[in-house]
Amino acid sequence: MDPLSPTPRTTIGRGRDRAVREREQLHALLADALVAHLGVLAGEHPHEHPVVLPVAFGVEAAGPDAGGTLYLHGSVAAGWLARALEHDVCLSVTELDGLVAGRSSFHHSMNYRSAVVIGRARLVTELAERERALELVVDHMIPGRWRTLRASTRKELAATAVLALGLAEASMKQRAGGPGDEAGDIAAGVWGGHIPVRRTAGEPVPDPDATGPVPADVVRRARQLGAPG
Amino acid sequence: MDPLSPTPRTTIGRGRDRAVREREQLHALLADALVAHLGVLAGEHPHEHPVVLPVAFGVEAAGPDAGGTLYLHGSVAAGWLARALEHDVCLSVTELDGLVAGRSSFHHSMNYRSAVVIGRARLVTELAERERALELVVDHMIPGRWRTLRASTRKELAATAVLALGLAEASMKQRAGGPGDEAGDIAAGVWGGHIPVRRTAGEPVPDPDATGPVPADVVRRARQLGAPG
Repeated sequence: MDPLSPTPRTTIGRGRDRAVREREQLHALLADALVAHLGVLAGEHPHEHPVVLPVAFGVEAAGPDAGGTLYLHGSVAAGWLARALEHDVCLSVTELDGLVAGRSSFHHSMNYRSAVVIGRARLVTELAERERALELVVDHMIPGRWRTLRASTRKELAATAVLALGLAEASMKQRAGGPGDEAGDIAAGVWGGHIPVRRTAGEPVPDPDATGPVPADVVRRARQLGAPG
Repeated sequence: MDPLSPTPRTTIGRGRDRAVREREQLHALLADALVAHLGVLAGEHPHEHPVVLPVAFGVEAAGPDAGGTLYLHGSVAAGWLARALEHDVCLSVTELDGLVAGRSSFHHSMNYRSAVVIGRARLVTELAERERALELVVDHMIPGRWRTLRASTRKELAATAVLALGLAEASMKQRAGGPGDEAGDIAAGVWGGHIPVRRTAGEPVPDPDATGPVPADVVRRARQLGAPG
C-alpha cells in the first residue's frame, strides 16, 4: 500500500514524533475502531460552524478510491447528509489505549491511535456499491453477519443513504508507553507510569423473544472483543 | 440543574425518541467519557471545512457559564487553537455501550450515549481559572491526582493554552437494549440481541525508573475502570 502522504491540511504540526506513515496502520486502526466522528459544515457564511456526529462505518481497503474507501450510512432524511456533500468533511477515528500518569500535571497524557481523514464525500447511487457498502458496515460491527441475514428490501434501501469517503488524504498519530517526564521529577523519586485501557465485550444478550442459540458470528465477535467464556 | 434546552442547531431531528432532556445525564456522560472530539473550522470561504481532533477535557458543573463549563487545553503553538476562537466550535462526546445485532441489516445499530455541544470557545487568561481548569483536566483522567503533584512551573503554564466552552447549548441522545426489528423477522424465528461493550483498564504499569508503590489515586482509578485485583 502507498504510505500516508498528507497534504498541507493533514500534515501533522505539533507532535511530529507521534506521526504514523504506514497506510497499513491506518487500516489496522479503522479495523479496531467501531465509531468515527464526522465533522460537517453547518450554518451560513460568516456564521458557519462544524457539527460533529458519531457514525458507524465500513472500509473497503481496495475500494474505488486511491488509498481505500470508507463508507458511511444514514437516513435519507438526516439533515447533515446534504451538507456533507456540499463541503469537504473531516472524519476522525480515535482509539484510547491508556491514561498516562506523569510526574507533573504538564506531562499527563493519553495513549491513543488517532486518524484524521479530510475529503469530499460522494453519494453512492449505484445499487451494487450501495449493497456492498452496507455489507461492509454490518460486517465491520460483527464480521460474517451480513451473509446470515435476509436481503434488504427495496423500502429499506430507499430509506438509507450511503456516502463514500476516499482515504487518500489522511494522517495518523499514536502515542504509547509511559510519560515523558522532566529529569528533575524523575530524580526526585516521583512515581510515573500508565494505566492501559481497552474495550471489552460482555456476553451476548438475546432479545426476550429470541429463540435458539446465539449465532456463531455474534459469539465469535463477543469473544474477540474479550467477553468471558 | 436546568434541563437541556437545545437551540434550533442542537435540536434533535432524526431519532427524537432517543433524545435525553436531563442535564444531569449530560454531566454523567461527561464524567464517564475520557476523550471528546472537537470540530473547528479550517480553510477559507468558500473552501472552509471542519477539522475534528480528539481532546482531553475537564468539567466544572457549577462553572462560570450557564449550564456548566467544559475546559480544554492545548499547546499555545497548536494551529487549531486560534481558529477555535474565531468561529463557533462543536464538541462531541460518545460512549459506546453495545453492538446491536438486528434480525436484518437495516436494524443493526449501536447502543451509545452521545452529546453535542456547540458554542464559542473562550481563551482562559486569568491565572486562577487556568490552574483550576488544568486541575479539572488532570483529575478527570485520574481523580485526586492533581493534589499529589508539584505546582506547574511558569514555563509550563506559558506553554499551555486553556479554552472554556459553555455547556448551555447542548443536546444528548442515547440508545440502549436490543434491536427494533420487523415483526415478520421476529415471527420467522431469526435471532436478535446485542453485545454489551464497555471500557476496561489493566493493571497500572510503572515506568522502568519509577520507584515505590503505585500511588493510591492511580490504583483507585484502574480499579474503578475495572482492572482486576
